[in-house]
This record gives sequence, structure tokens and C-alpha cells, in this order.
Amino acid sequence: MNKGRIEAFSDGVIAIIITIMVLELKIPHEKSELKDLLSLWPVFLSYVLSFIYVGIYWNNHHHMFTVVNKVNGAILWANMHLLFWLSMIPFATGWMGENHFAPATMALYGFVMFMNAIAYSILSNLLIKHHGSDSLLSRAMGKGLKGKVSVACYITAIPSAFINVWISGGLFVLVALLWLIPDKRIENIILKENQHSS
Amino acid sequence: MNKGRIEAFSDGVIAIIITIMVLELKIPHEKSELKDLLSLWPVFLSYVLSFIYVGIYWNNHHHMFTVVNKVNGAILWANMHLLFWLSMIPFATGWMGENHFAPATMALYGFVMFMNAIAYSILSNLLIKHHGSDSLLSRAMGKGLKGKVSVACYITAIPSAFINVWISGGLFVLVALLWLIPDKRIENIILKENQHSS
Amino acid sequence: MNKGRIEAFSDGVIAIIITIMVLELKIPHEKSELKDLLSLWPVFLSYVLSFIYVGIYWNNHHHMFTVVNKVNGAILWANMHLLFWLSMIPFATGWMGENHFAPATMALYGFVMFMNAIAYSILSNLLIKHHGSDSLLSRAMGKGLKGKVSVACYITAIPSAFINVWISGGLFVLVALLWLIPDKRIENIILKENQHSS
Amino acid sequence: MNKGRIEAFSDGVIAIIITIMVLELKIPHEKSELKDLLSLWPVFLSYVLSFIYVGIYWNNHHHMFTVVNKVNGAILWANMHLLFWLSMIPFATGWMGENHFAPATMALYGFVMFMNAIAYSILSNLLIKHHGSDSLLSRAMGKGLKGKVSVACYITAIPSAFINVWISGGLFVLVALLWLIPDKRIENIILKENQHSS
Repeated sequence: MNKGRIEAFSDGVIAIIITIMVLELKIPHEKSELKDLLSLWPVFLSYVLSFIYVGIYWNNHHHMFTVVNKVNGAILWANMHLLFWLSMIPFATGWMGENHFAPATMALYGFVMFMNAIAYSILSNLLIKHHGSDSLLSRAMGKGLKGKVSVACYITAIPSAFINVWISGGLFVLVALLWLIPDKRIENIILKENQHSS
Repeated sequence: MNKGRIEAFSDGVIAIIITIMVLELKIPHEKSELKDLLSLWPVFLSYVLSFIYVGIYWNNHHHMFTVVNKVNGAILWANMHLLFWLSMIPFATGWMGENHFAPATMALYGFVMFMNAIAYSILSNLLIKHHGSDSLLSRAMGKGLKGKVSVACYITAIPSAFINVWISGGLFVLVALLWLIPDKRIENIILKENQHSS
Repeated sequence: MNKGRIEAFSDGVIAIIITIMVLELKIPHEKSELKDLLSLWPVFLSYVLSFIYVGIYWNNHHHMFTVVNKVNGAILWANMHLLFWLSMIPFATGWMGENHFAPATMALYGFVMFMNAIAYSILSNLLIKHHGSDSLLSRAMGKGLKGKVSVACYITAIPSAFINVWISGGLFVLVALLWLIPDKRIENIILKENQHSS
Repeated sequence: MNKGRIEAFSDGVIAIIITIMVLELKIPHEKSELKDLLSLWPVFLSYVLSFIYVGIYWNNHHHMFTVVNKVNGAILWANMHLLFWLSMIPFATGWMGENHFAPATMALYGFVMFMNAIAYSILSNLLIKHHGSDSLLSRAMGKGLKGKVSVACYITAIPSAFINVWISGGLFVLVALLWLIPDKRIENIILKENQHSS
């Protein structure tokens, strides 16, 4: 079975999710001065954060699938499951932004991010299992340390929101930075592979 | 004529349909506590159900087209007809969720699902006819038993909604499960084919 | 320059346009009986008509590009111009449906369809010019009789709407039928070409 | 790493952005005469302008990537950064249209366009650096004079909006025309390259 169409479909859904979020940034009706934009900052800030998160997911999905060479039914559904939780991000983002980062909204955001991390990990585990533990994919994915740290951060961020929203917010930014810092892992392994084979 | 673009267009439309549905999950305005999310459960539940349904359609469409190698004008229109009924799913889902699974809304949902099943069956019959009864596609599709059972369930679910919504709801979940259980049919036939030819 | 990405981008825009139209079919809030759906029939009917129209455009675009093998800057912009007028269809459709096919709304619908026909004809002329008059594309496109009849219908439909909306409505349905009836032209020419070369 | 999926994802996001903008063109509710469309002209005009701008970005992105043959992580993020600012265009367009080109809304429009130009320039610089200064890409991009003139126009347009909105408006139209006038640069270089190698 071909991986091309699963990539195309995921790209489509992720592209829509990332763009739908911007619809939450509602035009201030009957207000046309620069200061009227100020009240939008929490919505804008939460949009920026979620844009980066969705971008990270697309990026990782893209990287992972460059070393995938076969898929099966279970993988299709694991991917669909990931898309489901990604599709919850605009809702969580909008609720958080609109309520100026109120505790419950940040806890929900953490929960949605946690579910996304779990869904991604299910998908990557199924892919590794399908390709074998000595496959290029398996070596490229490594131990998934970053993923585990992220999950720990989300688990901490959920209850923390009710104590101090700044802790949760800090953890969300931390996870984003963790993934934004370039990860040469997959790129290096592919590079080595090419050198070996040539 | 190339099948690539019909796949790409279908992927695009299905990706948008699946993502548009989430817009029905409206943010509870000026409410920022966890208990405010509780009132959203019927909308959320109907979203989950429809997400799975649309996922099943994408999955089956994807599987079927892996063994398609030619299309014609009638097939393009049969595909468009399927996309039309798929595009009705967000409306039916939203109406059902918003009205807490009221009888008429569940009957409409059943009707939309029924029309989708019919549209899918027209598409697959045209494809089989175009490829010949001894084609890989024809053997892969088999007798379409699952499709027939689904149609029977939808036909039962429509009037049942006015007697007891739980019957219809149960039937919708049943059909979803029927398709979620892995169907090795197409995968096996392709596998055998590859073994034969090698 | 490659035609693949212009196809992909057009597919994306057309897929979104066709799906955005369904958003006009608004859920009847706080109404959950079958009879509450009755008031939606003009919106539904105009959605069906526009779905078919956009489907025809996608279909023709798809057919035409199967015989295109090169594009240039002017063609990219002619394609963008077509996408612009296609993007006006949801607005014209929504206005017409919401106002139960009022004269002015049908005149606007006719105008938007007229502009789409003009935009499509500019695109196909540029493509023919770029490929040469003895190219496969040029022969496949023929004299464009259908296109000319369509334009004549739209020009008639615009003023007719203010006399009797049924005339305009009839003309819109006529044009749709004209294009829905299978057009073997391009398919036949490709078929012949393949026979010649083999 | 393959450039195909970055192109596909960008196409998806840009297709959605260009189509989402049309949603700002809201149907005049309970008004069904031609004169009711007149009040929409500022929204329509700003839609046309932004459609052309987004079209230019897609066009340039498309042209640039035809000569790209490798990407890395930093390029993926630079592309994501460009998509972020492109996603701000519907908001800026809607605000400007709804407020009949009020000074602050035009200044914001200029700012968003300025950020897009910066994001595009970061992306193209990273691509040139990745391909080397003697690469086909590098020669095709040239000195980027048009880009510099555009940035200068945007910088001028932002404060000018508070003096006279016609200055800013004129500058926006000027930049659009600057890019609409066919740019044979990349096409010529590819043409020459093909002649050299053959």
C-alpha cells in the first residue's frame, strides 16, 4: 500500500486545521483604531503558540514519513486518530485565547496536547513495528526522549493550571522550544545511510 | 485518464469535510470553567461518530483506488456524487448534536448515511464494470456484504429513530464497528497477486 | 515549468469552494423536527445547482490539463483569474438561496457564471496558443461550441431574471445538463492518438 | 529530504487562505436588490487586492521551488513562518474592508504585507545559502530588486496611512502591479540552462 495518499490527506487536514485557527482571531467590529487591536493579544498569542505546535506536528510527521516505505490498515487508523486530536487544537486554542488563559482552559489545552502526543506515539510505534526494529525508520526514531519529556510536561501542566497558569504556560512554551531546536537525528541517519550505500 | 487527480481532489474535499465538522463544536462564550464543557457532550459525541464515518469512507476510497488503474467521465461524476453526500454529513451531524439526538435529527443522519452508502456503491459498481469482472479490482471488492448490511442498518435506523433513538444510535455504532474491524480482503488479494506474479 | 503544482493548487481551491458552499446550509437552531427542514429547500436547491457547476468546472479543468504539457506565467494568472470567479460562486449561491431566487440574486448568479465562462475561455485560449494550433490540446478542445452556447445562455439569463425568474432558472439548468451529458471529445482524441502512435 | 511535501502543504495552506478571505464578503441578509450589493464594494475591493497579493506569493513560491532541489529543517520553518504571515492576510483584509479603508486598518495591512515580504526574503536567503551561490536557484533569484522596492513601499505605506489613505492605497496597488508584470527572469535562466546542457 502506498504512503503517498496518507501523506496527502494528512497534509490537507493539517493545512485546514492550522488555517481554521486564524478564524478565531475575529475582526473587532465597528472599531477601526490601532488600540482596538490590543484586546486581541490573548487570542493572537494563543494562535501563535498553536501554530507552532501544529507546525511541529507537521514537521515531525513529514520527517517520519520520509523514512516510511509501507503502511497498513492499523497505521491508517492510527494516523486518523492523530488527526482527530489535532482537530481539537483550534477549539482548545480559541477557548484559551477568548478567556485570557483562564485555569480550566489551560488545563484543557494541556489535555488536548497530551492526547496528541499519545496519538503520535501510537502512530510511530505501529510504524516501527511494521518496519522492524532494525529498519532505517526504527533507528531514525531512536528512543523518543523528546516525546517522553513532552508528555511529562503536559501531565504536569494540567493540574498546575489550577495553581498558577504561568507554570502551565511556561511548560507549553518549553515543549515548543524543545522541538523547535533543530533535531538532526533523522537527517543524519539518512545521510549516513546514503554514504554507506554509495 | 489518470486516477491521480481524482484521488487528490477527493482527498481535498474529504479533508475539508472532516475538519469543517469541528467548527460545530462551538466555544462556550464567556464561560471558562470545566463544567461549561459538559453541555458540549452531544456535539462532541456526534463529531466523534461522524469523524469515524468520514474516516471509514476515506479509508475505503483509498483502498479501492489502490487497485483502480483507469477512470472515465461517468466515474468522475459518480465520485462527485459521493462527495456531495459526504458534504451533507457536517450538516446532519451538527443538527443531531445540537438537538441532543432528537428523533428527526437521527432519522436525517440515517438518511444521509444511506445516501452515502448508495453513492459509494454506484461508484464501486461503475469501477468494477470499467475494469471487467475478472480484474484485480473486481476480485478485491468481492460481494460487498458489509455494504449491504450497512444499507440494511440505515434503512432500519431511519424509522426506528421515531420509536426509540437508542435503536438508531446503536445501529450507527454497529455499522461503524463493522467497518473499523480490519478488513484484510483487499490487502490479501494484492498480496496474493504479487506472489503470483513473482 | 511543471503543470503538477498548478493542478494541485487548483484542486485545493476548488475543493474548498465546493465545500464552503455547504456552510450556507445553516442548521435550523432550536428546531428539531422534519418540517423545520422544509424552509431550507431554496438553499439546498441552489447548493445542488452550484455543486454541479463547480463539479463541471473541475471536470473540464481536469480533462483539459491531461493534455497540457507546459505552462507559463500568463497561464498561471489566467488560472488564478478563473479561481477568483469560482470563489464568487458561494456568495452568489448563498444570496440566491437565502432570498428564494429573487430576481436580482439570479441576475448576479448569471453574471458570476458568465465571468467564470469568460475566465475559462481565456485560460483555454492561452493554453492552445502556448501549445500551437496543431497540438493534441488544440484538437481536443475543438471549436468550443458548448462554451459559446453557455455564454449565450448566461447573457440571456441576466436580464430575463427581472422579467421571469423561471426563464433564468431554466437556462441555468439547461447549461448544467449540456455539460453533464458525457462529452467524449477529449477522451476520443486521446484514444485515437494512442492508437496512431502504437 | 524531498521538496514535494513542503510544496503540497504550502499549496494547501495558501489555497485555504485565499478561499477563507471570500467568507468576509458576507451576504446582505434580508436584502435582495442589486443596490444592496453597493455597500459591499470596500470589502470586495480589498478582497480583490488580497487575492492578487496571495496569488503573487503562490506564483513566486511556485517559481522559486521549481529550481529548489533540497530542503532542510531551517527551510521548513522559514516556510512555516511565511505561511503564518500569509494567514494574517484574511484578518487584515477583512478589517480594512469592513472599515472602508480607515487609516489604522491600512497601516495594519501594510505591516502584515511588510512581514510577509520579510518572511519570503528569509526563506529565499536560506534556500540560496543551502544551494550555494553558484547554483541555478541563486542565479535565478538575482538581486531581488523587486523585493527591496516592495519592502520600501510597505515601510512608506504604514505611516502614510495616517496622513492620507490614498498614498498607502496607491503604494499597495503599485507593488501588486510591479509583480503582476511578467518576470521572465527565472523562466529565462531555466531556458538557458537547458540549452547549455543540451
